[in-house]
Amino acid sequence: MEVQDKLPAEKLVVFQPSGRRGRFAVGTPLLDAARSLGVYIESVCGGRAMCARCQIEVAEGQFDKHGITSSNDHLSPMGEAERRWKVPGARRMSCQARITGDLVVDVPTEFAVNRQVVRKRAEVRRIALDTATRLVRVELPAAEMERPIGDADRLIEAIEAQAGYRGLVLDVTLLGSVQAVVSGGSLTAAVHEDADRPVIVALWPGERTSVFGLAFDIGSTTIAGHLVDLATGRAVASAGTANPQIRFGEDLMSRVSYVMMHPEGCAALTTAVRGAIATLVTRLAGQAGIAATDILEAVFVGNPVMHHLFLGIDPSALGQAPFALAVSGALRLNARDLGLGLHPGARVYMPPCIAGHVGADAAAVALAEGPQHHDEVTLVIDVGTNAEILLGNRARVLAASSPTGPAFEGAQISSGQRAAPGAIERVRIDPLTFEPRIKVLGVDLWSDEAGFEEAVAATGVTGICGSGIIEAVAEMFLVGIVAADGTIVEVASDRMRASGRVFDFVLWRGEIEIAVTQTDIRAIQLAKGALYAGARLLMDHLGVSEVGRIKLAGAFGSYIDPKYAMVLGMIPDCALDRVSSIGNAAGTGARMALLNRGHRAEMEALVRRVEKIETALEPRFQEHFVSAMALPNAIDPFPHLAAAVVLPVASSAPRERRGGRRRG
Amino acid sequence: MEVQDKLPAEKLVVFQPSGRRGRFAVGTPLLDAARSLGVYIESVCGGRAMCARCQIEVAEGQFDKHGITSSNDHLSPMGEAERRWKVPGARRMSCQARITGDLVVDVPTEFAVNRQVVRKRAEVRRIALDTATRLVRVELPAAEMERPIGDADRLIEAIEAQAGYRGLVLDVTLLGSVQAVVSGGSLTAAVHEDADRPVIVALWPGERTSVFGLAFDIGSTTIAGHLVDLATGRAVASAGTANPQIRFGEDLMSRVSYVMMHPEGCAALTTAVRGAIATLVTRLAGQAGIAATDILEAVFVGNPVMHHLFLGIDPSALGQAPFALAVSGALRLNARDLGLGLHPGARVYMPPCIAGHVGADAAAVALAEGPQHHDEVTLVIDVGTNAEILLGNRARVLAASSPTGPAFEGAQISSGQRAAPGAIERVRIDPLTFEPRIKVLGVDLWSDEAGFEEAVAATGVTGICGSGIIEAVAEMFLVGIVAADGTIVEVASDRMRASGRVFDFVLWRGEIEIAVTQTDIRAIQLAKGALYAGARLLMDHLGVSEVGRIKLAGAFGSYIDPKYAMVLGMIPDCALDRVSSIGNAAGTGARMALLNRGHRAEMEALVRRVEKIETALEPRFQEHFVSAMALPNAIDPFPHLAAAVVLPVASSAPRERRGGRRRG
Repeated sequence: MEVQDKLPAEKLVVFQPSGRRGRFAVGTPLLDAARSLGVYIESVCGGRAMCARCQIEVAEGQFDKHGITSSNDHLSPMGEAERRWKVPGARRMSCQARITGDLVVDVPTEFAVNRQVVRKRAEVRRIALDTATRLVRVELPAAEMERPIGDADRLIEAIEAQAGYRGLVLDVTLLGSVQAVVSGGSLTAAVHEDADRPVIVALWPGERTSVFGLAFDIGSTTIAGHLVDLATGRAVASAGTANPQIRFGEDLMSRVSYVMMHPEGCAALTTAVRGAIATLVTRLAGQAGIAATDILEAVFVGNPVMHHLFLGIDPSALGQAPFALAVSGALRLNARDLGLGLHPGARVYMPPCIAGHVGADAAAVALAEGPQHHDEVTLVIDVGTNAEILLGNRARVLAASSPTGPAFEGAQISSGQRAAPGAIERVRIDPLTFEPRIKVLGVDLWSDEAGFEEAVAATGVTGICGSGIIEAVAEMFLVGIVAADGTIVEVASDRMRASGRVFDFVLWRGEIEIAVTQTDIRAIQLAKGALYAGARLLMDHLGVSEVGRIKLAGAFGSYIDPKYAMVLGMIPDCALDRVSSIGNAAGTGARMALLNRGHRAEMEALVRRVEKIETALEPRFQEHFVSAMALPNAIDPFPHLAAAVVLPVASSAPRERRGGRRRG
Repeated sequence: MEVQDKLPAEKLVVFQPSGRRGRFAVGTPLLDAARSLGVYIESVCGGRAMCARCQIEVAEGQFDKHGITSSNDHLSPMGEAERRWKVPGARRMSCQARITGDLVVDVPTEFAVNRQVVRKRAEVRRIALDTATRLVRVELPAAEMERPIGDADRLIEAIEAQAGYRGLVLDVTLLGSVQAVVSGGSLTAAVHEDADRPVIVALWPGERTSVFGLAFDIGSTTIAGHLVDLATGRAVASAGTANPQIRFGEDLMSRVSYVMMHPEGCAALTTAVRGAIATLVTRLAGQAGIAATDILEAVFVGNPVMHHLFLGIDPSALGQAPFALAVSGALRLNARDLGLGLHPGARVYMPPCIAGHVGADAAAVALAEGPQHHDEVTLVIDVGTNAEILLGNRARVLAASSPTGPAFEGAQISSGQRAAPGAIERVRIDPLTFEPRIKVLGVDLWSDEAGFEEAVAATGVTGICGSGIIEAVAEMFLVGIVAADGTIVEVASDRMRASGRVFDFVLWRGEIEIAVTQTDIRAIQLAKGALYAGARLLMDHLGVSEVGRIKLAGAFGSYIDPKYAMVLGMIPDCALDRVSSIGNAAGTGARMALLNRGHRAEMEALVRRVEKIETALEPRFQEHFVSAMALPNAIDPFPHLAAAVVLPVASSAPRERRGGRRRG
């Protein structure tokens, strides 16, 4: 490490795209500098050069206005660890690269947060602004000695008179500061209107033009939050993180089991999720250059287990029939009672849960997608460990959940992993040679394109995620490697891996071998059968044999190819152009509830009228489930799919039924 | 210390009157045993044999049913410290006496709490029960799988249906426990009705018949609390303690100054008062054998400075004109926001403050005394550092405060002290010999009665408290030692102590000499002049020249002799049998507000209609003040007093006016 005497001891470092900057001692690792500025760079290994996730790019030649003309000497030379990880091009591992001069650093967005997190982006959507919290400018008349009412009471009178409120009250947390704020005579109050009475929840001397709100989607795998300017409705920052509850159990039911087995389990899971949220709040506020105490409102959605654990409620009852929710109605709470570190007067809105396995996230999805506003029958599916399914139109809306299990999230799959860099997410198989091609998360090239090897070197090919396994199985079915009953058939390919009469199909041979096994296919059949059976049950209840539109929600729904989902028989037959991915609709619904009080009322009214179908109570669900395990399935014809895709000739009903019977 | 081999190693000790009992190792000091059982014995020195306050009595011959026939060997022999303090009769210092055998101990009530505290007793009074928090027994119908609403929602539906509530909500703190409680189907809910909507604040499985409430009077000197069974209205425990804020300043204004001078001063005083309250709550709960979390409601009253500091509000604005309250209206709060350690769902009610120096305590006094219910004009005076004065009848009620200063509390008096054991509280002077007789707090004998010396030995005669100084000055006036203008006149007595032409009068010669000095009399003249001027100002505003009834509230009001107060000219002339002491009326009002929601509304309506008179704004107050410094005073005749007492001939108006001019 060379340090030139003439340079100042501390070096200027600017991180893009946030623009955050600071001066750091020569020798400071870039990762430490980023953290001290609140710039988030992912690091799984904690700076021990063991994950290569913390890569950044040095932006050269961007720095002249700061007086730097050469950029050769701003970082320590590349060392052994970085060479070992084959960090590509202009990139460096920020835990290894140490500051030796002034520089500008680009934090690549795909590394700024874990890829699985980025999927929960704030969808662009127009939401009419009618926030529950409003700013009111107040000019306070001078105090009258003859009328010795308190400053708080005088303030309430003035706001009532000037802004037309009645029955206004002051949040208790403001009692200590009200006198200092009113002393100037001119002030801004934040009035929260979504309560029995309007409540002054925050006060500032002089003028204040913006306050902020949070919309959070607490997923079992990923927690994503958006920070929204309540004055404009604009999302000013978004961030996500893995749900730290994962260490207590990968899927919902294992977390419920953890709680049931450990006396302090519920508290531990609640602390974990609230801690992650508090960290995200700090990061969001940092991104936007505001304080966490500038945040006055928050909306949280999540499935029932996430919803309960966030609130500190033991979810054990959700683990077994009758799957009783502790609370289902919408909740209006003080953020301080949840210890979230927001403004002391901040309020929290939790949308209602629909049923034992259909949570506030499904309510938010329903709000965002509004099936009740259309004549056309819409099927909305949010795939997770439990698929939440909504079906309906203007006349009726039905909801159910299906126990798909975690196979779609990559669990229970031999080479399965969560959607993260290195995971196979796309698969194509040549119908003649049976040679597979893959695409990996974080790399834009297919595996048969030039440069793929180099591009994938940073992460390696580490496993197969949910969308990857769906495409793999569907492609295997389309080219005849998998029969309609799910059996892997031996074909002429060196990709076949035999174990007696049971075969696996190898997708990738690299540092590790990644294959689709017969057991993997059985797991996918169970998951997709459950999903289809749930949707089909709702169709039965609604009395329709086909749906007009299918919307796939959630992280998984965003990445899934509708064609392959239909080839597998995960979703009912539908014109492919009527199947769409709606992204993080739960997050969108949360933002709608944050920005518009009317949407809260709409959601609550909708949830009351939704007909809840408990799949566990319906004998037909089991029947559908068994039949739906075949490929595409043995219940329904797929005319729309057959028009778009050449389905294998052998995928006839008798054969599928045989497959179904085998397992039944 | 003799320990007999045959006795068990641990000895049974029963404390009376509480009946608490426990087994303790031989050698345990009685004070430690008492503390471990929650039996309160005062100890100023903390068990170092330096205060002699921790005296108890051994109750002999009471213990036969426990199998003890002899009581000679149950305590260690009296030691040096106890002999030095001359502990009387059957008493022992509990920090010195160590347990050597089973015994019954009487804790004398005058030592159970500081005497100044005992004065704030719960007055016996019938209050109609209409509590804000009610217990509701609920039988919950079984959950319907077809209607998957949450257990909390189902509970709310059942209580609404069975108890006739509408818009019922569940306190957020119950979300975590609701499922466990409802699982049994039969439960008891506490519903708090004094909110915008009825709120379920507590839940218990099965039947529950009692919950508790607190009524607290936070005085500048003394904090007194009563624990009340909300089902019966009965006070089940009472306790008091010195306000620990005293260490930041003896009187209100010095505490306000402390806050103004110290950045963290407000927080320190808030922490101090809340800590004392939390300790009292623990003691009250211990006395009643309940948990602090069995307490669901609390009412706190106090003067504006105490009120603000309790709420964490900086009282600086109350220290100077315009004496602006931060908040004057009644407050309904969650106890958890104040950190009081009650039930998590407990609610707090703070009555309104009337004006800058007329607090929630005065509102409570007004509620308790109800001058607005009578045709007769009633004057209610609560004497403290600021006297709070109410005057009125059915037609009008007026309120003001008078800056009496702390002289009546024994401050600013050369030998002054707070009302505590050892303080002179009664004085009589022989009109012929000028020989004074005194009575001391904690001793029933007059100083000229046999046995006084022995009785007073435990505490000594340590100073003179407020009621003592009033009697001393009034008696000195009546016998001619003090002229109408307040000058001490030389009389033929060895009690005169001269310093040039200025005289003191010695009341007591013991270990220390206790005298009334000329400066003391000036301080009393200022205090009583202010008090009288305030009352007189309200009489002017009401347009009356005399009052039908005078009620003296508060600790001081309880101990003051109305005759001497009138001789001094502290209170207007009135038939002596129409002057009464009403004890801790603020505490009574607090209990009324605790037990009856209607009383809250009544108090709030009354406070709104009370006409607030700001003495500092009234030129006539200054005039009255100057004239009222003479004895009795130079404003009004005292015909009622003159009929009861032989007033000195020389107490003519000109002489009094001269006294007034001297100080003006």
